[in-house]
Amino acid sequence: MDESGPRHGGSVFAGLVGASQVLGLVSVVLTGVWMGHYRGGFAWDGSAQEFNLHPLCMVLGLIFLQGDAILVYRVFRNEAKRNVKLLHGIIHLLALIVSIVGVVAVFDFHRAANIPDMYSLHSWCGLATLILFCLQWVMGLLFFLFPVASSWLRAMYLPIHVFCGLTLLVMAIGTSLLGITEKLLFSISSTYSHFAPEGVLANILGLLLVLFGVLLSYLITREEYKRPPNPEEESLSVHFKTLTEGGSPTTP
Amino acid sequence: MDESGPRHGGSVFAGLVGASQVLGLVSVVLTGVWMGHYRGGFAWDGSAQEFNLHPLCMVLGLIFLQGDAILVYRVFRNEAKRNVKLLHGIIHLLALIVSIVGVVAVFDFHRAANIPDMYSLHSWCGLATLILFCLQWVMGLLFFLFPVASSWLRAMYLPIHVFCGLTLLVMAIGTSLLGITEKLLFSISSTYSHFAPEGVLANILGLLLVLFGVLLSYLITREEYKRPPNPEEESLSVHFKTLTEGGSPTTP
Repeated sequence: MDESGPRHGGSVFAGLVGASQVLGLVSVVLTGVWMGHYRGGFAWDGSAQEFNLHPLCMVLGLIFLQGDAILVYRVFRNEAKRNVKLLHGIIHLLALIVSIVGVVAVFDFHRAANIPDMYSLHSWCGLATLILFCLQWVMGLLFFLFPVASSWLRAMYLPIHVFCGLTLLVMAIGTSLLGITEKLLFSISSTYSHFAPEGVLANILGLLLVLFGVLLSYLITREEYKRPPNPEEESLSVHFKTLTEGGSPTTP
Repeated sequence: MDESGPRHGGSVFAGLVGASQVLGLVSVVLTGVWMGHYRGGFAWDGSAQEFNLHPLCMVLGLIFLQGDAILVYRVFRNEAKRNVKLLHGIIHLLALIVSIVGVVAVFDFHRAANIPDMYSLHSWCGLATLILFCLQWVMGLLFFLFPVASSWLRAMYLPIHVFCGLTLLVMAIGTSLLGITEKLLFSISSTYSHFAPEGVLANILGLLLVLFGVLLSYLITREEYKRPPNPEEESLSVHFKTLTEGGSPTTP
């Protein structure tokens, strides 16, 4: 419904994408600074330094990389769809690997320190998000990269896949905010209420993650930034072909 | 892109709306049970019982009522738009009043107990959400109920208003999850990790709020549940009229 011209719309889009990247990168860096400077750095030995890898990996994998994996469909909306699909799948795979490292780090730390697992709302939301993320990735692979599903099923599933992807990004951000709150109340409960610098830094990180999520959601849902229909558009062409000819799709 | 018939689509829609209402109501009841049974009930005297009104009011006002205020546009999508607008505005006003009571309760409790304000991520996200909610309500009133803005501006603003509304609902839910985590770590930090019933109940409340948000988001963004275009459709007719005739809109 926006009547602004394509040139103006293009520069706004580029500005918003740029802003999202700055927000995402600054969030990753701030997480690194928080864990590196205030929490003693990183290690892989079951210590608190191993725990410190958890926030870093989750913000990098399940938020920044997941967000960018979704965003490629808007940034490269005029490129060949097959290539964009492949990039989307590869960045998601990277996000999954980084996230799994992050989750292993926290379970390892809990085991070494004899801390119970899976009792907090953060852990419940986090595990649900990761399991659904894996499921979404496998389903995406089966439906859209390998022609396992029928073209009708693929067209049916596409809007659900898009909705679930954005939902998972938002869930990942919400879960990170819970993690930030937990970590601060565990680590600096006596000084948090006096605006200790560590607390303020972590709160700012939380707000940046929220802004990243809002910006990504806007870029992904805004009608004018969606992939324009063209003969390579699988979802439409496959659908139309199926309806009119009953034939099998020619994958673009 | 969904090819299911309107009758089937209608029953799925009704089922999803019903499920959302059950989720919303159960969430409000669970919050009441948590605060009433585990946290000593309610009062308005600056005590911890006054604090207990905070979660109840926020879940009722900023989540359940805000969600339903948005949902009326889908549930009554075939009714006269002016009436639906009015209902949308009135439920939002109710949500705002209930939320303000909830916020006053927590500030009152903090003052009486000499607890610092506004240091936590929960408070930062919560205040941002409430301020933006007020702004969104006033903007909605000016743009859509009173003809202050030009028809071109109204058509421009509509998708932003819709996006911001859903974003605010998600932010309210995220903030509530932070509040749940904070409250549990303040109140039952020694038993939370041993799966104390209060902790499990509060975690379940958190998951129900997430499900409510996911369901509402799905119902609101799903193309087939959107208001069908008809002569009363202001956003389209106003827009089209402006483009073709340069005239002022006839408000439906």
